[in-house]
Amino acid sequence: MGKNRLEAFSDGVLAIIITIAVLGLRPPHGTSLAALRPVLPLFLSYILSFVYLGIYWNNHHHMLATVDRVTGGVLWANLHLLFWLSLVPFVTGWMGASKFAAGPTAVYGAVLLLAAIAYFVLQSLIVASQGEGSLLARAIGRDLKGKASPIIYVVAIAAAFLAPWLAGALYALVAVMWLIPDRRIERAFAAREEP
Amino acid sequence: MGKNRLEAFSDGVLAIIITIAVLGLRPPHGTSLAALRPVLPLFLSYILSFVYLGIYWNNHHHMLATVDRVTGGVLWANLHLLFWLSLVPFVTGWMGASKFAAGPTAVYGAVLLLAAIAYFVLQSLIVASQGEGSLLARAIGRDLKGKASPIIYVVAIAAAFLAPWLAGALYALVAVMWLIPDRRIERAFAAREEP
Amino acid sequence: MGKNRLEAFSDGVLAIIITIAVLGLRPPHGTSLAALRPVLPLFLSYILSFVYLGIYWNNHHHMLATVDRVTGGVLWANLHLLFWLSLVPFVTGWMGASKFAAGPTAVYGAVLLLAAIAYFVLQSLIVASQGEGSLLARAIGRDLKGKASPIIYVVAIAAAFLAPWLAGALYALVAVMWLIPDRRIERAFAAREEP
Amino acid sequence: MGKNRLEAFSDGVLAIIITIAVLGLRPPHGTSLAALRPVLPLFLSYILSFVYLGIYWNNHHHMLATVDRVTGGVLWANLHLLFWLSLVPFVTGWMGASKFAAGPTAVYGAVLLLAAIAYFVLQSLIVASQGEGSLLARAIGRDLKGKASPIIYVVAIAAAFLAPWLAGALYALVAVMWLIPDRRIERAFAAREEP
Repeated sequence: MGKNRLEAFSDGVLAIIITIAVLGLRPPHGTSLAALRPVLPLFLSYILSFVYLGIYWNNHHHMLATVDRVTGGVLWANLHLLFWLSLVPFVTGWMGASKFAAGPTAVYGAVLLLAAIAYFVLQSLIVASQGEGSLLARAIGRDLKGKASPIIYVVAIAAAFLAPWLAGALYALVAVMWLIPDRRIERAFAAREEP
Repeated sequence: MGKNRLEAFSDGVLAIIITIAVLGLRPPHGTSLAALRPVLPLFLSYILSFVYLGIYWNNHHHMLATVDRVTGGVLWANLHLLFWLSLVPFVTGWMGASKFAAGPTAVYGAVLLLAAIAYFVLQSLIVASQGEGSLLARAIGRDLKGKASPIIYVVAIAAAFLAPWLAGALYALVAVMWLIPDRRIERAFAAREEP
Repeated sequence: MGKNRLEAFSDGVLAIIITIAVLGLRPPHGTSLAALRPVLPLFLSYILSFVYLGIYWNNHHHMLATVDRVTGGVLWANLHLLFWLSLVPFVTGWMGASKFAAGPTAVYGAVLLLAAIAYFVLQSLIVASQGEGSLLARAIGRDLKGKASPIIYVVAIAAAFLAPWLAGALYALVAVMWLIPDRRIERAFAAREEP
Repeated sequence: MGKNRLEAFSDGVLAIIITIAVLGLRPPHGTSLAALRPVLPLFLSYILSFVYLGIYWNNHHHMLATVDRVTGGVLWANLHLLFWLSLVPFVTGWMGASKFAAGPTAVYGAVLLLAAIAYFVLQSLIVASQGEGSLLARAIGRDLKGKASPIIYVVAIAAAFLAPWLAGALYALVAVMWLIPDRRIERAFAAREEP
């Protein structure tokens, strides 16, 4: 199986997830600008999820650029990742509506953690399918970000029960960490093309 | 008509169906973790549907890989399949919200049964359009899974009125049966390429 | 501008419209099969709209197959068509929820009428852009179906205020009329390829 | 990174945004035609947003036609634009439900303003990435429309608090301004192909 239809399907699912999360933002009942205040936590929560989903789309795109053939295992690992990401609108809405209460904020982190694990499984299967000298393996190198993120999520989940704002700050920290440009895959591609 | 736009449209519809099913998961009102308990049946129901839709997407993809030209009949048989699959979010929501009550659990099975029949019709039309020596016909062989699934659905629909959990277990059984790798179509492709 | 992105965007919008119409089907509150009875009018209404959107997707697909280049006018005529089709879920929900009351049934027909006019405008712009000997012009020929449909819609809209079931029957009639295979465009393509 | 997947993802998100805005149009409770009257402001608000999103899709399409390679900066600038556009259904619903009250009408303009700024940032990054003699830079020329729009939005936002209908008229004016055919990019392409 070629990878085009897998990419197209993943793009479709990610585009829908990123967009339906906004459906949680219901128009407020009042008409004054102050009526927007209760929507604010939900809006912050939506921004955070939008950035995370953008990062996943971006990294997913780069990872698949190294893939030539898709095995059955890769296909299901990809669906497994999309499953956890599909829960993001649900936990975004709950965390926002609860104004970052402890429980929903911890559950938000749990979904991020499970998505990160699913991404790691997918990445490992692709590396395994590429065999020795895997382009992706060279591209991710020691994968510091990939290893640090789940640890920070676990810390944030625990922190949510003490100080939810700290958990929120840690989620934002991981997002910023991934936003900082990271040319690993481009570099690996370039290295391959050099003589 | 080529098959690209048919694939793209089907992928789009399946991506949306798989994603809007999650809209049934409304954020709970409480903020404690216990507030998630009432959502649990809906969550289980969502997982089951996600797996089923993933299997349909996967099988649909493999089936269309054997197709070169799309006839009008194939096009409408495909829309007929998408119609029954589009009802999955509705029955998922009903079964989950009712905590797997007899009626909704039976109706869930009825939709699975009708989707399976629609898939069979689509498959038969493609085989017929390929004529003798059909690649797809060789790929599906005796089609044991395809024949067993509707029988199990019928049993499960009847079982739902006696013990809904048994129906649920049978639906999960069919899903697991399809998840077990099945290299029929790859094998048929490989056989064709051999001398 | 090439037509690929226009097709992809139209497919995306049509896939979403066809799928979100089902969101109007809310899980019933009861758990008996009888609880489905109030959903029945909405379900019938949904089937009708699904078939109409399938026909539009199908015809749109064939029409664009004759197009090589997309002008600004064609692009906006296409968006105009998508606008009226995007109202289908709204009028489907209203007609179904009202159990085919006069007003909503007439408004449903009005949206079908406006979509048919938008389709006619799009078709005319494509024919004009192809100049003399237009492939599409030969394909549609006298366009009996295209001319009969708006007339039947107008009759049905008037009939809705006397007997809504008659309007519903007329909408179904037009759908059946279009479902009957119609190989005009294939024939025109074949004719072009013949010496 | 090639631009195909960026285009496909943007098309997907725009198709979903343009379509879910219509979900705000809930079927009215009555069954008479008069029951549509309260939906009218929402309907007008939906038309306006549909046209805006159509313009964005159209311009986005033309702009990307000049791009060969997508940098990380362009990718995130594109997601930034999609973020503000994803808020359009929310502000459309609020403005419509409030019957064009001052606050929601001003917030609608603020989202349009932020989307326009995001579009400008994306355009500037593309021009910068193309270096001297940028095809896009020649195509946009002095970019009068691009410069006038934000100014009109700011005026409209202020006007919303005095006379919301004036703000609405100004939003419509900007839309009409962009609808008037503008062959800048086609001309630039044509100029490039000339000797």
